[in-house]
Amino acid sequence: MAEDIFKVDGKEYSKEQYWHTSSHILAQALQRLYPACKLTIGPAIENGFYYDIDNLHITEDDFSKIEAEMEKICKENLPVVHKDISKDEARQKWKDNKYKIELIEGIAGSTVSTYSQGNFTDLCSGPHLPSTGLVKAIKILKLAGAYWRGDAKNEMLTRVYAISFPDKKELKKYLMGLEEAKKRDHRILGRQLDWFSFHEYSPGAPFFHGKGSRIYVKLINWLRDEYRLRGYQEVITPLLYNKKLWETSGHWDHYKDEMFILNIDGQESSLKPMNCPSHLLIYMNDSKSYRDLPWRVADFAPVHRNELRGVLSGMVRVRKFSQDDAHVLCTEEQMDDEILALIDFANYIYKDVFSFPFDVELSTRPEKFMGSKEEWDKAEKALKNALEKRKIHYRVNEGDGAFYGPKIDFHIKDSLGRSWQLSTIQVDFQMPGRFGATYEGQDGQKHTPVMLHRALLGSIERFMAILIEHYAGKLPTWLLPVQVIVLPVADRHHDYATKLREQMLRAGLEVEVDYRQESIPKKVRNAQQSRIKYILVVGDNELKDGTVAVRTWDNIVHGAKKIDEFVSEVVKEIQDKK
Amino acid sequence: MAEDIFKVDGKEYSKEQYWHTSSHILAQALQRLYPACKLTIGPAIENGFYYDIDNLHITEDDFSKIEAEMEKICKENLPVVHKDISKDEARQKWKDNKYKIELIEGIAGSTVSTYSQGNFTDLCSGPHLPSTGLVKAIKILKLAGAYWRGDAKNEMLTRVYAISFPDKKELKKYLMGLEEAKKRDHRILGRQLDWFSFHEYSPGAPFFHGKGSRIYVKLINWLRDEYRLRGYQEVITPLLYNKKLWETSGHWDHYKDEMFILNIDGQESSLKPMNCPSHLLIYMNDSKSYRDLPWRVADFAPVHRNELRGVLSGMVRVRKFSQDDAHVLCTEEQMDDEILALIDFANYIYKDVFSFPFDVELSTRPEKFMGSKEEWDKAEKALKNALEKRKIHYRVNEGDGAFYGPKIDFHIKDSLGRSWQLSTIQVDFQMPGRFGATYEGQDGQKHTPVMLHRALLGSIERFMAILIEHYAGKLPTWLLPVQVIVLPVADRHHDYATKLREQMLRAGLEVEVDYRQESIPKKVRNAQQSRIKYILVVGDNELKDGTVAVRTWDNIVHGAKKIDEFVSEVVKEIQDKK
Repeated sequence: MAEDIFKVDGKEYSKEQYWHTSSHILAQALQRLYPACKLTIGPAIENGFYYDIDNLHITEDDFSKIEAEMEKICKENLPVVHKDISKDEARQKWKDNKYKIELIEGIAGSTVSTYSQGNFTDLCSGPHLPSTGLVKAIKILKLAGAYWRGDAKNEMLTRVYAISFPDKKELKKYLMGLEEAKKRDHRILGRQLDWFSFHEYSPGAPFFHGKGSRIYVKLINWLRDEYRLRGYQEVITPLLYNKKLWETSGHWDHYKDEMFILNIDGQESSLKPMNCPSHLLIYMNDSKSYRDLPWRVADFAPVHRNELRGVLSGMVRVRKFSQDDAHVLCTEEQMDDEILALIDFANYIYKDVFSFPFDVELSTRPEKFMGSKEEWDKAEKALKNALEKRKIHYRVNEGDGAFYGPKIDFHIKDSLGRSWQLSTIQVDFQMPGRFGATYEGQDGQKHTPVMLHRALLGSIERFMAILIEHYAGKLPTWLLPVQVIVLPVADRHHDYATKLREQMLRAGLEVEVDYRQESIPKKVRNAQQSRIKYILVVGDNELKDGTVAVRTWDNIVHGAKKIDEFVSEVVKEIQDKK
Repeated sequence: MAEDIFKVDGKEYSKEQYWHTSSHILAQALQRLYPACKLTIGPAIENGFYYDIDNLHITEDDFSKIEAEMEKICKENLPVVHKDISKDEARQKWKDNKYKIELIEGIAGSTVSTYSQGNFTDLCSGPHLPSTGLVKAIKILKLAGAYWRGDAKNEMLTRVYAISFPDKKELKKYLMGLEEAKKRDHRILGRQLDWFSFHEYSPGAPFFHGKGSRIYVKLINWLRDEYRLRGYQEVITPLLYNKKLWETSGHWDHYKDEMFILNIDGQESSLKPMNCPSHLLIYMNDSKSYRDLPWRVADFAPVHRNELRGVLSGMVRVRKFSQDDAHVLCTEEQMDDEILALIDFANYIYKDVFSFPFDVELSTRPEKFMGSKEEWDKAEKALKNALEKRKIHYRVNEGDGAFYGPKIDFHIKDSLGRSWQLSTIQVDFQMPGRFGATYEGQDGQKHTPVMLHRALLGSIERFMAILIEHYAGKLPTWLLPVQVIVLPVADRHHDYATKLREQMLRAGLEVEVDYRQESIPKKVRNAQQSRIKYILVVGDNELKDGTVAVRTWDNIVHGAKKIDEFVSEVVKEIQDKK
């Protein structure tokens, strides 16, 4: 992808090699400034690079000094030279650094690869830039602690994170983006806005407070409305299942480590990590005929996955979450129409409702696969046809499908340009057969239905996090937990404010009144910080005229409006999912 | 209670003694007919009595013979005589019955109590009727297997269930009630109507199918609407918690056996059996002042309780369920108003919406109690005042409150006259203090809030079961999963039917079309059996006039109606919770 490339002086370099050389520049600078420090490893990462170092005692105050030294090394434009040396020579060279010695002993063969720039040499398998001068802008981002080899039993090292660019403007843009992302961080906004919180007693499981729950419930009720119109039945399913279910589905063999296991009635059981087996149990509760298909079933059941505690992150990586999960069981003949309907549903959500740019990947038959080539061809063709019919551009990942069927992935792009994979539409030839799910065809014979798996928002928790960061908390009106606030100017306007609140509540608006003895400008600021879109000031004039003085969170003043007019405008906005 | 009494020939006898003597009559009859059988124990139960017997091999075909023998014993009008005998005499008397010997050895002291009627004597502590002639009507109900002393390692005995009355008419009424209850059994209706099911892989946890889920979601969304207007915030909370939480709440000591325990991150954790601790964690997430109170929080989180597998029963006794759970944290001064609001909420639900007759019990300070007498007096007075203010009749259970506060229980009566305890309004002086939850008062000091616990439907699952049996599945329109069905007379009316369905769906009605090639009378019957209230037949006339021919599940024919008129009538019914 073009995005993995930097262009410097007309030549292209991979970001990986660019940031890898940059990490050597960092190490070189640190060794010049702090000769007693011990280098360990320093890789390129998704955004920038880091180096883990022992016996380095620095604070943020030292950053500018280190950056200055790094810039010096760049200006020196040192050629980067690769050399394989014998292990003996390497052992001699790093005899005072037990970490490098450990790395050397871990490398197969009799030689090790090194890269040098000036009088600095590091043990490294490359690749690197040809010279340090190609790095034009550098910034140290933060310090962190990290265990040698990620093992808490080992020494704690100092990890220095940094990033570099071929251009000062690009660095500036990146830093501004970081700044903006920090302001939009859903964990920070969630706390500030009193939308949700976390607690050490239940790691990885958000507590949605009153306002956060409203957003959550609005998302779910919206999908429920869509399900009614699109012919889905919603089900409510148990969360605990005997391991026999997971043995049948195959999860016990392949997914056990990520399940929460417990003993029930003397037998191993687990909290469900996904819904598909529950839906097959319902499907099989009575016999089905071709007339019952397509059978579309949706579920918001909370699922639990035993993610490592260390990787949990806000609502993006959690242990408990609900998906807008659905499955379609259908005949092969129905597959085309069902996939088209799913694409339309996805398009409606991403494009019509949220205006997210998105791109699509189609993953096709891998070398090892279940089912027949004919089935696969049919399924891949159905996926392609649907995308083409809807003029949706897509990329093909040849051979990248799961062994049980091809799939389409949707990636949306948020307002900071970050890409998020949200949904997968997956064709599955395997699961219904494992459970022995069948339908009676028009021929009177038993057939195995095709199963389509899909979640369009994905995890509701994660989707909420993305929305919060995308909109910086200024969600579309229909999703706001507080859409309107009434600010009475003086005590004598409280009754009017209360009456307005009551009227708006009954009209379905989310509304609060700020009765505090504070100045109107202060109340307005508070309301804007609280991400309340419409701020209605009511004083003597408004009371007399039955109006409200409307302004917005962007401080646009709309002036006096009849209350009925205002209510019906906002009701319309909500109905239109604006 | 008057209900625990039978009146015979002008005298009153407790049902317990009445059914206890009846069980001896059963035993005597069986011993006359099957001399080799071994009697064990035979208590009175809530409805009737049973006797557990070894070496008894009978089927339902034998019931009339046994009943005839029992009636003979009644007619013999044998006096029932109490006698204490020495254990030695007792051991001699029951030397051939190891069960009675085991019972004798388990009794303290040197004598045992016996009751005789004619030449039949049983080991028994009474009390009994004075003579067998007081029993006028008897019916054997069913056979079951039961382990001696309820232990699966012991012998399997035959349990004979029966019931008796002072009057044949009363027996007939009871049997008709049983018959009716069977027809209304929510487990049977749930399966017949495809509303929900159970599966051995998840005992005690219902699977709500598409239609059952609709009822469930309608109940919850109704309460959500009420919560908005009544100033509750709904929260969404984690299900798994570290045991430290349960140690703080006291559940680890008192409730551990009923929790599902599992290991998370190397520490004991559990699925939550109730929500109160989650709510206190949210309350304590930031500091609170008196201005933040009353703080009303509601939660539909699924809770899990490890009930014994043997006692699980349909949706009435389950392992996984959601409550319409809510807690109010308030100052002592606010308690009166908050309790009044809860009584009003309960009254709205039972009386206004469901027209259930209900009665109320107030349980007051027990000998051992937390908090001060003054607090208790205040809380009891608040509960009483609220009931009296609303002219709700109540019974006082002196000293029957929990040690942490007084409470009100609501019992509703269903259409079969069965009583169900639904809700409790509980004052709690203890839990907030255990967690260290406080608020800053107007005096600038920290105070501990009072906590009110309450669920008005109780478990949604159990409430649904009660509704299904109360209405025999013919739920109020607003709760029906399918409110309307359209029956096209011929193929040429299918398009019109589809158009009507679309219109009604968008108006918020739950509607289906029966496109099958079946006769209209058959489709009507099917719809009625499926508990669909409005059946719209559409043929040539209806198509031409834009009407529908309306009839109901009770086969009342309303005739042709303009579709818009019909829709607005049903929409109104739904809005009015009819």
